[in-house]
Amino acid sequence: MPVIRVTLIEGYDEAVRDRLLEGYSAVTRTVLEAAPDGITAVIDEVKQSNYRRGNQRKSPKAPPPAPEQIVREYLAAMERRDLAAAKALLAPDFSMLFPGAAKFSQLEELIAWAKPRYRFVGKTYERYDTVPGMDEAVVYCYGALHGEWPDGTPFSGIRFIDRFTVKGGLLQDQKVWNDLDAVLRAQQA
Amino acid sequence: MPVIRVTLIEGYDEAVRDRLLEGYSAVTRTVLEAAPDGITAVIDEVKQSNYRRGNQRKSPKAPPPAPEQIVREYLAAMERRDLAAAKALLAPDFSMLFPGAAKFSQLEELIAWAKPRYRFVGKTYERYDTVPGMDEAVVYCYGALHGEWPDGTPFSGIRFIDRFTVKGGLLQDQKVWNDLDAVLRAQQA
Amino acid sequence: MPVIRVTLIEGYDEAVRDRLLEGYSAVTRTVLEAAPDGITAVIDEVKQSNYRRGNQRKSPKAPPPAPEQIVREYLAAMERRDLAAAKALLAPDFSMLFPGAAKFSQLEELIAWAKPRYRFVGKTYERYDTVPGMDEAVVYCYGALHGEWPDGTPFSGIRFIDRFTVKGGLLQDQKVWNDLDAVLRAQQA
Amino acid sequence: MPVIRVTLIEGYDEAVRDRLLEGYSAVTRTVLEAAPDGITAVIDEVKQSNYRRGNQRKSPKAPPPAPEQIVREYLAAMERRDLAAAKALLAPDFSMLFPGAAKFSQLEELIAWAKPRYRFVGKTYERYDTVPGMDEAVVYCYGALHGEWPDGTPFSGIRFIDRFTVKGGLLQDQKVWNDLDAVLRAQQA
Amino acid sequence: MPVIRVTLIEGYDEAVRDRLLEGYSAVTRTVLEAAPDGITAVIDEVKQSNYRRGNQRKSPKAPPPAPEQIVREYLAAMERRDLAAAKALLAPDFSMLFPGAAKFSQLEELIAWAKPRYRFVGKTYERYDTVPGMDEAVVYCYGALHGEWPDGTPFSGIRFIDRFTVKGGLLQDQKVWNDLDAVLRAQQA
Amino acid sequence: MPVIRVTLIEGYDEAVRDRLLEGYSAVTRTVLEAAPDGITAVIDEVKQSNYRRGNQRKSPKAPPPAPEQIVREYLAAMERRDLAAAKALLAPDFSMLFPGAAKFSQLEELIAWAKPRYRFVGKTYERYDTVPGMDEAVVYCYGALHGEWPDGTPFSGIRFIDRFTVKGGLLQDQKVWNDLDAVLRAQQA
Repeated sequence: MPVIRVTLIEGYDEAVRDRLLEGYSAVTRTVLEAAPDGITAVIDEVKQSNYRRGNQRKSPKAPPPAPEQIVREYLAAMERRDLAAAKALLAPDFSMLFPGAAKFSQLEELIAWAKPRYRFVGKTYERYDTVPGMDEAVVYCYGALHGEWPDGTPFSGIRFIDRFTVKGGLLQDQKVWNDLDAVLRAQQA
Repeated sequence: MPVIRVTLIEGYDEAVRDRLLEGYSAVTRTVLEAAPDGITAVIDEVKQSNYRRGNQRKSPKAPPPAPEQIVREYLAAMERRDLAAAKALLAPDFSMLFPGAAKFSQLEELIAWAKPRYRFVGKTYERYDTVPGMDEAVVYCYGALHGEWPDGTPFSGIRFIDRFTVKGGLLQDQKVWNDLDAVLRAQQA
Repeated sequence: MPVIRVTLIEGYDEAVRDRLLEGYSAVTRTVLEAAPDGITAVIDEVKQSNYRRGNQRKSPKAPPPAPEQIVREYLAAMERRDLAAAKALLAPDFSMLFPGAAKFSQLEELIAWAKPRYRFVGKTYERYDTVPGMDEAVVYCYGALHGEWPDGTPFSGIRFIDRFTVKGGLLQDQKVWNDLDAVLRAQQA
Repeated sequence: MPVIRVTLIEGYDEAVRDRLLEGYSAVTRTVLEAAPDGITAVIDEVKQSNYRRGNQRKSPKAPPPAPEQIVREYLAAMERRDLAAAKALLAPDFSMLFPGAAKFSQLEELIAWAKPRYRFVGKTYERYDTVPGMDEAVVYCYGALHGEWPDGTPFSGIRFIDRFTVKGGLLQDQKVWNDLDAVLRAQQA
Repeated sequence: MPVIRVTLIEGYDEAVRDRLLEGYSAVTRTVLEAAPDGITAVIDEVKQSNYRRGNQRKSPKAPPPAPEQIVREYLAAMERRDLAAAKALLAPDFSMLFPGAAKFSQLEELIAWAKPRYRFVGKTYERYDTVPGMDEAVVYCYGALHGEWPDGTPFSGIRFIDRFTVKGGLLQDQKVWNDLDAVLRAQQA
Repeated sequence: MPVIRVTLIEGYDEAVRDRLLEGYSAVTRTVLEAAPDGITAVIDEVKQSNYRRGNQRKSPKAPPPAPEQIVREYLAAMERRDLAAAKALLAPDFSMLFPGAAKFSQLEELIAWAKPRYRFVGKTYERYDTVPGMDEAVVYCYGALHGEWPDGTPFSGIRFIDRFTVKGGLLQDQKVWNDLDAVLRAQQA
């Protein structure tokens, strides 16, 4: 039943406004469990000259890409081993946490750690989930790993999940869980 | 810079209204990266008699607990092995997916599967994340497992993550990833 | 799809607010043919102290009864021949126009004119329709006449329609059309 | 004193928006008897991309002509005996009720019934009244008939009233009352 | 914390809208002492065709220049002794009140009165203050006089203040206070 | 024609809300010269729990008295020579500027300066004017002085004007102009 109305200075592009309307609709649906048809969301755009805060005009800066988009770009860069592109998306104190509590702060460390574990690995993504937040957004993605073991045997369908925090257009950290060890243990048994 | 204003039929309790305002604020912050102080969110409550949709009055039904709350209740019930309480929170077609692609639809199956793996297990939660959605909400929680191996040796600090989908106040499914196998493999090595 | 929001000084009783919401909903539906579920109408009540026009506070006067209600009271008073009650609802220059272009300005004239036409007459109302307007409202009602001819023969089911203009809580004029002559001609034939 | 504000997806033409503003103003005036100068009505147009219901964009369809306009077109088509044009404005189950409780469902029936009653008839309209409604609108029009009796004698100034229900741009039914029989009886007397 | 939102028929130029936003911001700051950053002021412009008062469209007339601007023009015209330009800014019943309770209604009277007091006088303005009002605005300006005494001796830095009432783009009256006499007395002592 | 709507957290007392509505009305009238009856100003009060900025609740602090009120209290305290009460209303760096460019920072200095000028002085106020501002408000008041000269001769009707800046409930400075010297010079002549 609610009507959500947001007043924006004009100039945000349509994709940004779409994400706002989707976000408000989803929050409303999640919190109230109101019938979807009863949830109306509207953006009111006002000219820059028609808006003041503290008697000052404001010029909205273009927002960064959606957190999910940043994560997708990072993962694509890593998959094609384009470390320069990947690093450009990382905050200075970016950190990684991998299964077995393996911690890294540099992509090169991760690569060195992975080397004896598999010849190569690719990811198929089942779903991305974004958690909006005041301080940072969180993006989860999960799906299946495929690749080759060090001996060249192929593998596929191994479950994984990644969790990224995103702030100001940069990745703050990555946490990874997956079933690689479960699969290896099952093979050994 | 945006002002978000939502019109609600009065009667929702304060915790529900808090969750709406938090959600709208977080969506706005995440999408626009606007300065937090520039994000104003307001609820306008109107009497039930002052609202019509399709020329009909509407009586808002009390929304279910927050998805995170439902997940917390479920996990607490499972930890104290109160299966009746846990089952009351599950949708009829609830399904579980555990490391090694182990699938269950009944809690009893899960318990049987876990029995040879550890004597008992407890969870410490580092964080809950809720993903709002039109069809369902998703709740992630992660932290560390502690417990005892079948031989009585204690363990702790083993990373895990759970993903639940929640709809209409019930859990639809659970996906679990953790480092148990990574730890066991490391011990065997 | 439209959202109609009206700001009112608080104090109007619920029936009045109901009529506003119904009226706005009906206008919207009639003009736009929008799906009923997409028409949201909301009243925002503000305290008298929170409203100014021309920097003056306003004290809304209680509105008169609904035009339909005034017409119903008039017709009921006439049916029970309570001329005092009926006259209290008439504007000073009230006028009547009956079939055959018979014009009256006093209820007594009407009664004298009707006397040779039937011993008594009653009305059954099928429907009332109100036409909102800036200067005056119009109320239509139609249905069937029943009664006795001068010779005592009963009659019933004779179609009629009345049109009243209503302003400031008083009836301004009445126009009547009916099938009495059609029926009499048919009987004569 | 009220302020009525309606939020519309942009794209409705000016005549449609005019009818909305007139309708809201008239409803307000009729219900509250507020001073006309105290009734403010405003349309807020928002871009299609700035509106969602149930997280869906909506494309408002062009509304049908005003009910009064449809009635005028029908009456004009009938007067010039353009049955095809008239029929195009009728709902499949259109029905007519004429003085003396004459019922028809086909225009041809009406024409056959009227033939012995007058050589031709024209109408002068004094006024149209539209009753907005959720399910259907009602249009009343009244005025004077002129024409020729079967013997060629002219007549004029004979009162009539028509009532049409209009839905989805089509006429649902027509009810007619007039003084033809009253005039004929007076001539016979 | 407040959000001020004003709905205007579109067409006012930016300087006018600026003055509105500044005025609302300043009133809010002055009355509430709210933190400036918490004061949001927004203008909503609606098309002329989307606005009705009393079911009438309104065509906003261009407002007169800001009161301060009118006072500045008047003072500049007086300083360059352009009496025609100055008079064009005066209401018919304009009156002046100068130190020693000297009253004038014509600029010529003022000039005659001033003649023996100084050869010429100029003004340096430190500040203009505008007091908004329903019936009239008030403009204060103060600063320092400089010029020459009748004997040709120069003077400067003599404090003055003017108070003008402004209505409908014309000056209604002027009140003047200054230190000329204080300075002269000090010189005599 | 404008409609001004301000959203406030509830809890401000009526006098404060009155001042806001008056201020917005006066600004609108002054800037647009709109007909007073076309200026609608409305306060929307929302519960504290229904408002967030930067996802934080806000508790509005009670605003200080109106600037005019503070000036009145100060002037009354000075007139009854209650220096303690007067000083309580002064900012730490309060300064005064009197005719003849006499500057003081302490009330005692002012009193010492005035002593030889008159035995006592009282003020009659014709009008107070408040200039709203983002940084400070300005209050002007003017009227007539009365009192006794040092020799005991009474005087009255001598024009004066005071200008105060007010910020955070305290007076920042005072500027005074008056006709005392003009009157004394006239007496000497």
